[in-house]
Amino acid sequence: MSSSEKRDCNGADKEEPMESASGSATAAAEAVAVEPAKEDSAADAGKSSGYSGGNRSKRGGGNSGRALCGIDLAFCSDQKAGMLEAHSLGYAFVCLPLFHPRNVVRTGADVGGHADQEEEEGQRHRQLDQLRLLPATRPDHLVIDSEDWTRFVVGKISAWIRCDSSWEAERLQSLAALRQELSWAAHIGLVACLIDLPDGGRVSNLARALLAFHRAERSAPLMWVRVPMAAEQVGDDGDIASNDPWLWWHRLCRLCDLILGQLGVALEVTADLPGPAAVQRWLAEPVKALVLPTSLFLTNQSGYPVLSKAHQALLMKFFRLQLQVIITGSCRHDKGIEYYQQYINWLYSRRSTDLYSSQGKGYEDTLQDPLQPLADNLHSATYQVFEMDPYKYRAYREAVRQALVEMVPDSEAESRLITIAVLGAGRGPLVQECLIAGRQSGRRIRVFAVEKNGNAVNTLLNRSLSEWPDSVVVLPTDMRQLKPTDLQADIFVSELLGSFGDNELSPECLDGAMHCLAEGGVSIPMSYTSYLAPMHSSTVYKEVTRQRDPEKPYYTFLETPYVVNLVNSELLAPPQPVFTFRHPAESAGPDGRPASNERYIELTYRAERTGVLHGFAGYFDSRLYGSVSMSILPEDHSPDLFSWFPLVFPLHYPVPVKCGDAITVAMWRVVSATAVWYEWALLAPVVLPIHNAGGRSFTINLY
Amino acid sequence: MSSSEKRDCNGADKEEPMESASGSATAAAEAVAVEPAKEDSAADAGKSSGYSGGNRSKRGGGNSGRALCGIDLAFCSDQKAGMLEAHSLGYAFVCLPLFHPRNVVRTGADVGGHADQEEEEGQRHRQLDQLRLLPATRPDHLVIDSEDWTRFVVGKISAWIRCDSSWEAERLQSLAALRQELSWAAHIGLVACLIDLPDGGRVSNLARALLAFHRAERSAPLMWVRVPMAAEQVGDDGDIASNDPWLWWHRLCRLCDLILGQLGVALEVTADLPGPAAVQRWLAEPVKALVLPTSLFLTNQSGYPVLSKAHQALLMKFFRLQLQVIITGSCRHDKGIEYYQQYINWLYSRRSTDLYSSQGKGYEDTLQDPLQPLADNLHSATYQVFEMDPYKYRAYREAVRQALVEMVPDSEAESRLITIAVLGAGRGPLVQECLIAGRQSGRRIRVFAVEKNGNAVNTLLNRSLSEWPDSVVVLPTDMRQLKPTDLQADIFVSELLGSFGDNELSPECLDGAMHCLAEGGVSIPMSYTSYLAPMHSSTVYKEVTRQRDPEKPYYTFLETPYVVNLVNSELLAPPQPVFTFRHPAESAGPDGRPASNERYIELTYRAERTGVLHGFAGYFDSRLYGSVSMSILPEDHSPDLFSWFPLVFPLHYPVPVKCGDAITVAMWRVVSATAVWYEWALLAPVVLPIHNAGGRSFTINLY
Repeated sequence: MSSSEKRDCNGADKEEPMESASGSATAAAEAVAVEPAKEDSAADAGKSSGYSGGNRSKRGGGNSGRALCGIDLAFCSDQKAGMLEAHSLGYAFVCLPLFHPRNVVRTGADVGGHADQEEEEGQRHRQLDQLRLLPATRPDHLVIDSEDWTRFVVGKISAWIRCDSSWEAERLQSLAALRQELSWAAHIGLVACLIDLPDGGRVSNLARALLAFHRAERSAPLMWVRVPMAAEQVGDDGDIASNDPWLWWHRLCRLCDLILGQLGVALEVTADLPGPAAVQRWLAEPVKALVLPTSLFLTNQSGYPVLSKAHQALLMKFFRLQLQVIITGSCRHDKGIEYYQQYINWLYSRRSTDLYSSQGKGYEDTLQDPLQPLADNLHSATYQVFEMDPYKYRAYREAVRQALVEMVPDSEAESRLITIAVLGAGRGPLVQECLIAGRQSGRRIRVFAVEKNGNAVNTLLNRSLSEWPDSVVVLPTDMRQLKPTDLQADIFVSELLGSFGDNELSPECLDGAMHCLAEGGVSIPMSYTSYLAPMHSSTVYKEVTRQRDPEKPYYTFLETPYVVNLVNSELLAPPQPVFTFRHPAESAGPDGRPASNERYIELTYRAERTGVLHGFAGYFDSRLYGSVSMSILPEDHSPDLFSWFPLVFPLHYPVPVKCGDAITVAMWRVVSATAVWYEWALLAPVVLPIHNAGGRSFTINLY
Repeated sequence: MSSSEKRDCNGADKEEPMESASGSATAAAEAVAVEPAKEDSAADAGKSSGYSGGNRSKRGGGNSGRALCGIDLAFCSDQKAGMLEAHSLGYAFVCLPLFHPRNVVRTGADVGGHADQEEEEGQRHRQLDQLRLLPATRPDHLVIDSEDWTRFVVGKISAWIRCDSSWEAERLQSLAALRQELSWAAHIGLVACLIDLPDGGRVSNLARALLAFHRAERSAPLMWVRVPMAAEQVGDDGDIASNDPWLWWHRLCRLCDLILGQLGVALEVTADLPGPAAVQRWLAEPVKALVLPTSLFLTNQSGYPVLSKAHQALLMKFFRLQLQVIITGSCRHDKGIEYYQQYINWLYSRRSTDLYSSQGKGYEDTLQDPLQPLADNLHSATYQVFEMDPYKYRAYREAVRQALVEMVPDSEAESRLITIAVLGAGRGPLVQECLIAGRQSGRRIRVFAVEKNGNAVNTLLNRSLSEWPDSVVVLPTDMRQLKPTDLQADIFVSELLGSFGDNELSPECLDGAMHCLAEGGVSIPMSYTSYLAPMHSSTVYKEVTRQRDPEKPYYTFLETPYVVNLVNSELLAPPQPVFTFRHPAESAGPDGRPASNERYIELTYRAERTGVLHGFAGYFDSRLYGSVSMSILPEDHSPDLFSWFPLVFPLHYPVPVKCGDAITVAMWRVVSATAVWYEWALLAPVVLPIHNAGGRSFTINLY
C-alpha cells in the first residue's frame, strides 16, 4: 500500500533555497485553479491568498470564487483602473506590460536594418546602458500599491526583446533590456512574469540570462514562458526543431536545468489544434496557464462566447493540471468581456472527477517514499486511509467466497472447517471480510489474524473480543516467525502488495509463512505481476532533482523509486509485464520456498511519440482468486481502487526520445540477507549507468 | 601558461576510496610500460614494484629491464614452473587461468542444449552453489607464494562464463562462477584479471556483477577487459552494435560508470586491421594491454618473428599510451618463445619521441587546474620551467626585432630611442630577449620591466643591476595600476596567454595598461585566437569524475576547465576558432579600451567518426608580430613549443556521437567586476544544461 504516508516526504525542509522564497506564492497562485468553482466557500478563505481568494471579500466583486481566469490587458491607458475593472468583472488577475512601448530603444533595427551594422556596433555597445537609463516604466505603475502587484498582476516582458538575435547589437540590447525588466519585476514583487519563447528554438542566450538573473535575485518571479501549441512553418533550414514549439521549450528546459522549478509554460491555444500526440506531450509539461485568444471563441445563439467542441475537449484535458486561463485579445462579443471568464469557469465546473482523483487531490505529481512495512510499523491513520478503499475489500471478500465454495462442496459445508490465516491483518479489515465471505458462502471457517505490529494487535484483540467472539484467533507475531504447529491454513489471505507488486516484499513474507499452508492450500492473492512503462514528465523530473540531503550523495535521489500520483505526465509506450510471483511458488523446494526471488529482465518498447524519457512508471495487477483481480494499470484500472499510486523509477538525467525509437531497460530484483532492492539501467536509445547499483541508494529492508 | 603547476592537482587525497587500494599497484603496473627500454638502469629500481621492475635483481633473468611484455600461458601443466620459465625468458608477467577447466560445471549446455531447460532449471538453481563448492582452483595454485601472485600474474577468468546468456541456467551459473573467481583473485592478491567481453554487446549482467563485486571488495583487482579490435559478423538482428566491439566496450563502460577506474581494455590485435578511424577510436580508450596472438608474427630471413609493417605502425601508435603487451598462442617460431618479447621491446625502443612528449612525461591525461596568474603569484620553479621553452623566446626575440626594424627606418636607427614595456616581466626572460633583439636590429631601446609579483621583482632588480646596467627600468606594479606618466611605450611585450588564449586574462591586463601605449604603438602579441574541438577521451572523463571535494557540490568538477596533456584521446572533428582579441582593440574607446571583452559564439561541427563526446579541447594560436606566430593547434603546432597543454572543457556526462552528426556548442566569455569565466552548453546532438552558469563552479579572478 502506498498512496498514504503523504506527509512523509517533500516537506518544506527539502525545498531548494532558490525556490523557497517564491514557493509559497506559487502554491497560492496554483491554489486558485484548484478550487475555483466553489462559490463563497468559507472553507476556502484560508487557502487562497494569491491573485484571487484573498481578495474576494476585500474587493467584493460579483464573481468572487471564480478565480481560474486572468486577462491580458494589452492596450490599457490606465493600468490601475484597468486592473480594478477586470477584477470587478470576475478576473482573478491581469497581465500588464512592465515597460512602456515608447521607451523601447530599437537602435538600428528601426533605422535601416543590418547594413550599417559593423560601423555602428561599437558605438551602440557603449550607448546601450545609457539609453536604458531613461524612465522606461510607465508612470501609472507608481499608483499601484505593492500588495496589488503581488496579488493581481502577472508582468509581461516586452515582446520586442530578442535575446538570441543573430544581429549582435539587437542581442546585446535585448539582454540588457531583459535584465532591467526582470529586475523591475522582482523589485515590485511580482509572482510571475510572462515571456515569449522565440520562434525556432534559438534560446541559449535567453536561457543564460534567466539563469544569471535567478542566481543574482533570490526572490525572482516565476517565468511563465509563452509558447504556441503549434507553430507556423518558420524555418527553412531543414531543421525539424524549427517547426515544433515543444522542442523549443524542451531546449530551454535543458539549458535552464538548474532553475527548472522557476519555469512554467503559458501555452497559447491555437485555432488549429495539433494532433493528439502533440497535445499529450504538453500534458507532461508544467503548463501553468492556457492562453486563450478571444478570436478562438464562437458565439452561441444567445450571443455569448463559447468554444468549439474540440477546444472544449482540450480544456477538459488541461483542467487536470493545476493551471489558470488567460484571456487575451480585444472583446469580440457584445455581451461584455466578463463572459469569457464566466464561460471558462462554467466549463471548469463541468469537468468530471472520480474517487481516485479526489483521494489523490493535493498530491498530484508529488514524490512519496514507498512504505517499508517490514521495517516500520504503520500508523493508525495510514491503516484508516487504506481501509476506505471501496474496491479492494469487496474484491477480497468475493475472492475468499469463491475460494470457500470451490474448496468445500455443498455436501461438506456443515462438516468441514476451513482455516483462514490473514497474514498481516493490520486493524482487521480483511478479517472482517473473511467472516462476511464465510457467511455468504455458507461455509464454516475459523480465522487466524497474524500481525507483527503490536499497536495494531491491540485493535485486533479488542475486536476479537467485542466483534468476533469465538471465531478469530489473534497471533501477535511476524508471519515469518510462525511455527508449523501454530496453524495449518487452508487459505492464506494477505494484502502485502506495493505499487510495483512485490516491492513491499510480499514474496519474502509469504515464503516465510509457507510451511503453515496446508497441502493443497491456496493463497489470496494467487499471483501478482509488476509492469513498467517509459514515462515523460518534466514535473516529476523537476521534483526528483529538487530532492536534497546534505548527508547523502547527490545521486541518491536520482535513483530512488517514488510513489507518485501521476497527473502531469504521459507514457511514451504501453506498460509491459516485468516480474510475476505466484503463491505457492511453482518450483518450490520441500520447505515451500522457491529457489530464489531474484529476478532479471530486459524490456524493449517502441516509442509511440516524440518526447523526453524521465523514468519508468511502475504498476501491478494481481489475481486474487478465480475471476477476481485488481489492477492499477492505466488502461485496466479497477474502478475506484485508490490504494495505490504508480511507482516511478527515475533516471539520472532526461533522455530525448523520437517517435519509433527503441527504448530498452534492464531491471533486476536483488535479494540480500537483510534487504531487497531494484537496480535498473537504460540500454537504449542510449546506455546509462546501472542505477542503484548494489542498493547504494535505496533498499527495502527485510527487518 | 599552463603546462606547469603539475603538482597542484590530482594528488592522492583526491583519489576515490574505491580506487585507492589498488591505485599504487596500477601505477606500478603502468610504470612497466613507461620505462621498458632502459637496461639495468639503477634509476629505475625505485619506480617499478609491479610485475617487472622489482624482480629484476631478485630473479636475475637474462633480459631484466625489458618489462613491456607478458605471456598468456594457456596450456601449462605446472603453473609455477611455467611462471619461472617465462620470467627467465624475459617476460614481465604471465596470464594464468584462475580455475581448472575440469571443474567447469556446464549443466545442461553439455548434455543436450536448451530442450530440457524448463524442467531442470528449478533443480539446477539449487544445485549451483553446491556444485561450485568443489575445489575448483588448481592444486598448483597453492605452491605460488603471495608476492609472486601480486607481481607476476594476471588472472584469467574462465572463458566459458556467459553472464548474459539468454539461457537462464547458464546465466545464473556464470554469475555464480564469476563471483567465485573474482573473489579468489582478490583473495590471492592479484593486481589485474583478464576477462573476455562477450560478443554482441549484451553485457548488462556482467556489468552488474562487476559493480556488485567492487562494492563488496575494497581491494578488487583491475579488470582488463579483452576485446577484439574488429569483430566477425556475429549478429544478424540488424543491430549495428552487434558488429562493433568498441560499442560493446562503450556499453560496459556506461553501465559501470561508477567503477570506470577499475576497467581497462586488453585489446586483441586482429590479423585484418580495421580502418584508421576505428583504430583512432581505441586510442581514446584506456587500453592497458595489447594482446598479440603469435599467429600475427611473420618470420624474417633469419628465422626470427617479426610483424608486418601495418602491425608495426599500429604498435607505434599504441606505444604512446602506457600499456603492456601480452603474447598469446603457441610458439610458432623455432628460435624460441623469448624472441616475441625481444622483438616487441626492440620495436618499443625505436619509437620516436620529441621535446613536447618528454616535457609532458608523467602528466599524460592528468588534470591540472589552470594558472590564476592575477590572483596568485607564480613560484620561481614555475617560471623556470617556462623559461626553458626553446621556441617561445626565440619567437618573441624575432618578433621584437621585426617590430623595431619596421618602426625605425635605418636612417633613424641612431637618433630614435624606442621604449619597450615588458608587461608581466617575471624573472626577466622577455627583457633579455628584447635587449638581444635591440642589438640584432641595431636599434636603440630602453626597456621597462613591469611586474606585480614582489618576489620576481627581486630577481629583476638584481639582474637590472648586474646584467642590464642602464638599459632596464623595473616598475614593481600591476600593469593595470600604471599611470600614463609612468611611461609611454612604443612596444608592449607580454606573455599573458593561457592554453585557451585569453583564459589568463591577457585582454583585461593589456586593456588596463593601454593608456601607457603611445600613439601608433604596437603590442606583441598583436592578436590571439582560441579554438575548440569536440573530444573523445574515456580517460579524461574518468579523471574528471574522480575529482572530489566534500565542501563543493558534485557538479563543480564536471564543469571546470582543466589543463591536460592529451594523449589518450581523439578529436571528433577539427578545431574551430572561438574568440579573437587584438591589441590595440579595433573598436576601442578614447581610453584605449574596447567596449567589452565579453564574447559569445555558437560553433557547429560535423563528427568525422563515431565516438563518445566527453568534452571540448581548447587551443590557441597567436600572431606575435609580422610573420612570427605561435600555435598549439594539433595540426599546426609550433615545433618544440611545450609551454602549453590543451585546456579541456568537460561535459556533465558522455554523449554518444555518430559519424556525420552535428555537434553544436555555445560558449560564453563573461566578465564581472571581479572575475572572468566561461560558460558553455552543448546544443546538439542533444541539449545539456548550461555549464558553469553564473560562474558557479569556476572563475578566473581579476584580483
